[in-house]
Amino acid sequence: MFARLFAPTVTVHAHCDLPCGVYDPAQARIEAESVKAIQEKYQGNDDPDFRTRALIIKEQRAELAKHHLSVLWSDYFKAPHFEKYPQLHQLFNDALKAASATKGSNDPKTGQTLLDLIAEIDKIFWETKKA
Amino acid sequence: MFARLFAPTVTVHAHCDLPCGVYDPAQARIEAESVKAIQEKYQGNDDPDFRTRALIIKEQRAELAKHHLSVLWSDYFKAPHFEKYPQLHQLFNDALKAASATKGSNDPKTGQTLLDLIAEIDKIFWETKKA
Amino acid sequence: MFARLFAPTVTVHAHCDLPCGVYDPAQARIEAESVKAIQEKYQGNDDPDFRTRALIIKEQRAELAKHHLSVLWSDYFKAPHFEKYPQLHQLFNDALKAASATKGSNDPKTGQTLLDLIAEIDKIFWETKKA
Amino acid sequence: MFARLFAPTVTVHAHCDLPCGVYDPAQARIEAESVKAIQEKYQGNDDPDFRTRALIIKEQRAELAKHHLSVLWSDYFKAPHFEKYPQLHQLFNDALKAASATKGSNDPKTGQTLLDLIAEIDKIFWETKKA
Amino acid sequence: MFARLFAPTVTVHAHCDLPCGVYDPAQARIEAESVKAIQEKYQGNDDPDFRTRALIIKEQRAELAKHHLSVLWSDYFKAPHFEKYPQLHQLFNDALKAASATKGSNDPKTGQTLLDLIAEIDKIFWETKKA
Amino acid sequence: MFARLFAPTVTVHAHCDLPCGVYDPAQARIEAESVKAIQEKYQGNDDPDFRTRALIIKEQRAELAKHHLSVLWSDYFKAPHFEKYPQLHQLFNDALKAASATKGSNDPKTGQTLLDLIAEIDKIFWETKKA
Ligand code: NI
Ligand code: NI
Ligand code: NI
Ligand code: NI
Ligand code: NI
Ligand code: NI
Repeated sequence: MFARLFAPTVTVHAHCDLPCGVYDPAQARIEAESVKAIQEKYQGNDDPDFRTRALIIKEQRAELAKHHLSVLWSDYFKAPHFEKYPQLHQLFNDALKAASATKGSNDPKTGQTLLDLIAEIDKIFWETKKA
Repeated sequence: MFARLFAPTVTVHAHCDLPCGVYDPAQARIEAESVKAIQEKYQGNDDPDFRTRALIIKEQRAELAKHHLSVLWSDYFKAPHFEKYPQLHQLFNDALKAASATKGSNDPKTGQTLLDLIAEIDKIFWETKKA
Repeated sequence: MFARLFAPTVTVHAHCDLPCGVYDPAQARIEAESVKAIQEKYQGNDDPDFRTRALIIKEQRAELAKHHLSVLWSDYFKAPHFEKYPQLHQLFNDALKAASATKGSNDPKTGQTLLDLIAEIDKIFWETKKA
Repeated sequence: MFARLFAPTVTVHAHCDLPCGVYDPAQARIEAESVKAIQEKYQGNDDPDFRTRALIIKEQRAELAKHHLSVLWSDYFKAPHFEKYPQLHQLFNDALKAASATKGSNDPKTGQTLLDLIAEIDKIFWETKKA
Repeated sequence: MFARLFAPTVTVHAHCDLPCGVYDPAQARIEAESVKAIQEKYQGNDDPDFRTRALIIKEQRAELAKHHLSVLWSDYFKAPHFEKYPQLHQLFNDALKAASATKGSNDPKTGQTLLDLIAEIDKIFWETKKA
Repeated sequence: MFARLFAPTVTVHAHCDLPCGVYDPAQARIEAESVKAIQEKYQGNDDPDFRTRALIIKEQRAELAKHHLSVLWSDYFKAPHFEKYPQLHQLFNDALKAASATKGSNDPKTGQTLLDLIAEIDKIFWETKKA
């Protein structure tokens, strides 16, 4: 049943330095989804306290997105990946800077930019898992 | 392309108290996968320092699994869900206790028990999202 | 009334997953007292920066209250307690939702609601400790 | 003796930098109780993995005790208190060093030393609250 | 003046409770520099969301400054230091209170006051390292 | 050699996403010094509990080193720097992997490798600050 729900993500991933061998760009993506959703809610609500809370929480979610991205770049991806995907260093640096940019902006487009970059990373990630 | 990769998980989820409206059992599941992978690596390596590190990291990943589960139970699920799924309270309590149990055990079966309980929660979660 | 409820909180308690066996609803209560005090200070001070800081800190204290409540529910209370106090699952879920509600409100009444729910939990907790 | 010391702990307290005005030595005491309980459990169980977990968790609880003590010393106590209780600076420094000492020892006596110092601080704290 | 104070900070230092033996007031100083820089940026930008973010981040950096100061006071400095520098207890208490004050103020002068107190601590620190 | 490298570290730096504009490789370096010192203490003490604590703390300090490095790479360094120093991406990736390696090793040589890589980053950092 799990198989059906998560069918195409199927195998598993890792994310610590044991290393346990489990990594998954979904962690960064979920935080980025949250960032964009917060930006949309900010746009739809002009109560100053609501907006202050939106900024507080967006700061945290964007920081978590950065953390998960950094883990992927430094712990999962290795020399052979960087050879095969020479754009990977810059892609991650762009994604991290995009996450920082969402902290200073309430425009959902910045959240979408971050999501797009994570989607590029996700695509490469799963290609390397299949390889 | 994102659509294809994540096809069946499709819609998005939320996990803070703004609330942003984004929730996803995948967060708990990924940590639980890590817990089980650590238990398996522990069984396959009798270096005492490696095992100590396995215990340190397993403690953290299990704690994160507990956090993500608690957020789902208290923030995502609401009165109508508890009416429709009267087993939900106990299911979450069992899952949290199963996560605690993985801290004190290096048997991958305890990690699998946690994963099975998260899969039950996941099933209900996505049913409520479709409803 | 508080005096009566907390009068017997003389002995000691525990709160981790070793488990050390020490639990105490006072941890959640102290954070909730802080939440309510912050809401009162917010009401008495209309400096925008003070209010922003109140929101930042209230978010943290309410989150800590939620954490301490979740630990009690998943780690301290066990099957026999849930049989004897069938309301316990819902009581904790209500308390966690009340804590979330204090994040989005600056009305001290929401802080008091949280404190009242924690007082109910505290009463049951000490009954089980005496049993 | 604890009963006597904590009997009047009915009223409330504060602990952040808004400041909310709520402080309570119970926060440090609960962590220290946990530290001592962990040391006792360590002595009663010679399973190496249990002992490793005891060390991991004791490190965290002792660190939390230090944090709560530091907050009391820097945020709650002010110039008039230090004049009236000239021993207060050294008492806090001793308590913090006693908390550090519990990290490096599994002897419950070190946990008790920490508890005794916190009890001294607690006594002074409640005298100043009544003043 | 900073140049003179920090010129000899060539050798290295430590900061945990193993203890590893590495301590360095630079950790507190860097956070305090950040606090002051944030206050200056706050003064130069009247966008309400920018100011909210400044308050969020200043709260964190000031808290980190407090943590690093507390570690120095409780872990690095010992009885012989307190005998030789009887002002040390009060100096640290003042510095911690100055850090708290920067949370509630956007005046860079409060950031500078904190930096000046850290510079005094730094001077004594390096004298004791040379001794 | 360290003396030469860090001699000009007189001016100040920044490290958040406001951004405050303060960055300093000293933050990563101090954690790395701690890592290496812990490895040396581990080698000099065969008490199993001491060694367990060394592993616990080393894990934390290495993680902090990684965090500080990641901040420098994603927040401080920008496109013109990457053009002028094309080795920068790989250098940071190597440093992060070296930090991960110190978690899994108790050989002080791995701590020194991390320090050497941070020293390279530090050298470039201060060149860009002067530019
Ligand atoms: Ni992992
Ligand atoms: Ni959310
Ligand atoms: Ni405990
Ligand atoms: Ni407070
Ligand atoms: Ni240290
Ligand atoms: Ni900064």
